[in-house]
Amino acid sequence: MTAAGHFKRVALIGFGLIGGSIARAAKLQGLASEIITTARSEATRARVAELGIVDSVVATNAEAVEGADLVILCIPVGACGAVAQEIAPYLKAGAIISDVGSVKGSIVKDMAPHLPANVHFVPAHPVAGTEHSGPDSGFAELFINRWCILTPPEGTDVSATERLRAFWAAMGAKVEIMTPDHHDLVLAITSHLPHLIAYTIVGTADELGQVTSSEVIKFSAGGFRDFTRIAASDPTMWRDVFLANKEAVLEMLGTFNEDLSKLTRAIRRGDGEALFDHFTRTRAIRRGIVEIGQDSAAPDFGRPHLPLKKQ
Amino acid sequence: MTAAGHFKRVALIGFGLIGGSIARAAKLQGLASEIITTARSEATRARVAELGIVDSVVATNAEAVEGADLVILCIPVGACGAVAQEIAPYLKAGAIISDVGSVKGSIVKDMAPHLPANVHFVPAHPVAGTEHSGPDSGFAELFINRWCILTPPEGTDVSATERLRAFWAAMGAKVEIMTPDHHDLVLAITSHLPHLIAYTIVGTADELGQVTSSEVIKFSAGGFRDFTRIAASDPTMWRDVFLANKEAVLEMLGTFNEDLSKLTRAIRRGDGEALFDHFTRTRAIRRGIVEIGQDSAAPDFGRPHLPLKKQ
Repeated sequence: MTAAGHFKRVALIGFGLIGGSIARAAKLQGLASEIITTARSEATRARVAELGIVDSVVATNAEAVEGADLVILCIPVGACGAVAQEIAPYLKAGAIISDVGSVKGSIVKDMAPHLPANVHFVPAHPVAGTEHSGPDSGFAELFINRWCILTPPEGTDVSATERLRAFWAAMGAKVEIMTPDHHDLVLAITSHLPHLIAYTIVGTADELGQVTSSEVIKFSAGGFRDFTRIAASDPTMWRDVFLANKEAVLEMLGTFNEDLSKLTRAIRRGDGEALFDHFTRTRAIRRGIVEIGQDSAAPDFGRPHLPLKKQ
Repeated sequence: MTAAGHFKRVALIGFGLIGGSIARAAKLQGLASEIITTARSEATRARVAELGIVDSVVATNAEAVEGADLVILCIPVGACGAVAQEIAPYLKAGAIISDVGSVKGSIVKDMAPHLPANVHFVPAHPVAGTEHSGPDSGFAELFINRWCILTPPEGTDVSATERLRAFWAAMGAKVEIMTPDHHDLVLAITSHLPHLIAYTIVGTADELGQVTSSEVIKFSAGGFRDFTRIAASDPTMWRDVFLANKEAVLEMLGTFNEDLSKLTRAIRRGDGEALFDHFTRTRAIRRGIVEIGQDSAAPDFGRPHLPLKKQ
C-alpha cells in the first residue's frame, strides 16, 4: 500500500531551501519511491550527492524529468519559462508538472505555452521559508502548518490537483486553491511588499552619514533587526519576484505610500490622537496571526534569552 | 559587602514591561536593599503587590521617591516632565534620577528644569523590549547583552553616572554614553522608523478591498508576520516617541522615502540589475547583527517548527 500523496518518481529541478526541504520531507514521509534532482552548479550537485537525501543527482534537467510522475521546478520565478521549454520534450505522458514560485500569473504565462497537452500543469506556492538559501538550508519541517496555494489553470484535471494536494498535505501543509491573479494580489501584500520595505530600510540604515553602520548594528534590538531577517533573503529569487509581480506590487506600494503619508502628517502636526488610534488598531491583526498558529505567541518571536548570572 | 551597582532604596515609577523587568533583575542580583514602586492604576498596583517582587507598592509618586537613592521613571516619554515636577520636592539630596525613555532630547528638556540642584540626573535608555506590556510582561533576562545608553547632561557628576552604569551592567546590559541628540538620531533609524513602517504596513494590509484580513492573517508567513510583532507594541508609548522625536524621525523618513522611490522606479522599469545589487548589499548588515549577538543565528528568528509526524 502506498501513502496518500505518493508518487513513483519525483523530479526536483533545483535543490535550494524549498527543493531541499521537499526532498527531506518527501523522503521522511515515504512520498516517493525515487527522488531525482538536478542543480545548475556542479558544486551544488556535489553537495547534494554528499547529503545522501535523494536517490540520484543528475546534470541535465532533461535527464531528471524522464519517467518522472511529478516534476517540481524549485528555481527562481524568472527561470521557469526557459526550463519548461527545455524539459517539455522529455516529460512522461500523464505526469504532473508543478513549481514553487512566489508569483503565479507570470508562471502560468511563461510555462503553460511550452507544456505538452498530455501532462497536468498544477502551479503551487508553499508560503514558507527562512532567510537562508542553498542545499544545506532545507529541513523536513518547513511546511508544517504553513499554507500551500495551488493555482491550477481552468480545465486542469481535478484528480491531478487532488494528487498534488495530498503530496503537500503529507508534508504538513494546508492546501488552498485560488486563481493566479488573486494569489498575486494576496502575496503582494503579505510577502512582496514586506520584503521590499525591509530591503529598503536596511539599505537606508546602511548609508546614513550621521549614524554609522556599526551603531545601527549595535542598537538594532530596538526594532530594526526584525527587518534584517527578510532583507537577507536570496537576491535572485527576490529580483525575479518583483519583476514578475510588478503590477500588484506597485498597486500595494501606492496604498502603503498613502498610509505612510497620513502617519507622517500626523507626526508633523503633533496629532497624538491619530497616532494612538492607528497604533491601537494594528494590535488585533497580530492577535489573529498568533491565534491561528501562524506565529509564535512567545514574546520577541521566542528569541532565546540567556539566564542572568548571580553576582 | 554590597554588590557593584547596589543602591539602598530604589524607586520605580511605573511597573510595565521595563519597570517590571528592572524590578525582577534588580531583585535577582541583589541590587537594592529595598525596591518601592508605584503605578498609576489601582488594578496594576494590586497586581504588583500580588506578584510579590517588590518590597512595597504605594499610591503616590511622592511617597515612592521619599528616601530613595535611585529613582527611575519607567513611564511613557510624554509623562516624564509632569512627574519630574511632581516628585521634585520629595527627592532625597544626592539621589540619582533616571528614566528609560526611548527619546532623550525631550526627556532632558522636560525633566531637567524641574529637578533640584542637589540630585544627579542621568537619563537612560535600555534598548530592549518585547511587544508585550503590563505588569506581567517583564522578566529578569530582558537586558542581557542589550545596550543601555546613558545621556548625562554636561556637568553631571561622573561618579553618579558610574553608579548607574554599574546598576545596568549588573542586570546584564552593556552601557554606552552619548549625547541626547545623537541618541535620538541613532534610535530614529534603529527603532522609531522601523516601528512607524511596521505600524503603517500592518494598517495598510488591514484595510485593503481586494484582499481580506483573514487572507492576510493566513498567508502572513510569507514575510508580513515579522512586521506585526513590533506593530503590536504599546500605543501610548509609541505615540509619545513620535511626538517627542519628531525632527529626527521626519529626517529619517525623508531618506527612506527617497530610497523607496529608487527601488519603485527600478521595479517599474524592470531594472533587475539595480534590484539584485540592492538585495545583495543588505545581507551584510544582517550578518553583522548576528555576529555580535544582537539576533539569533537560527533561521526564522529560531521560531519553533513542529516535528513531521510519520504517515
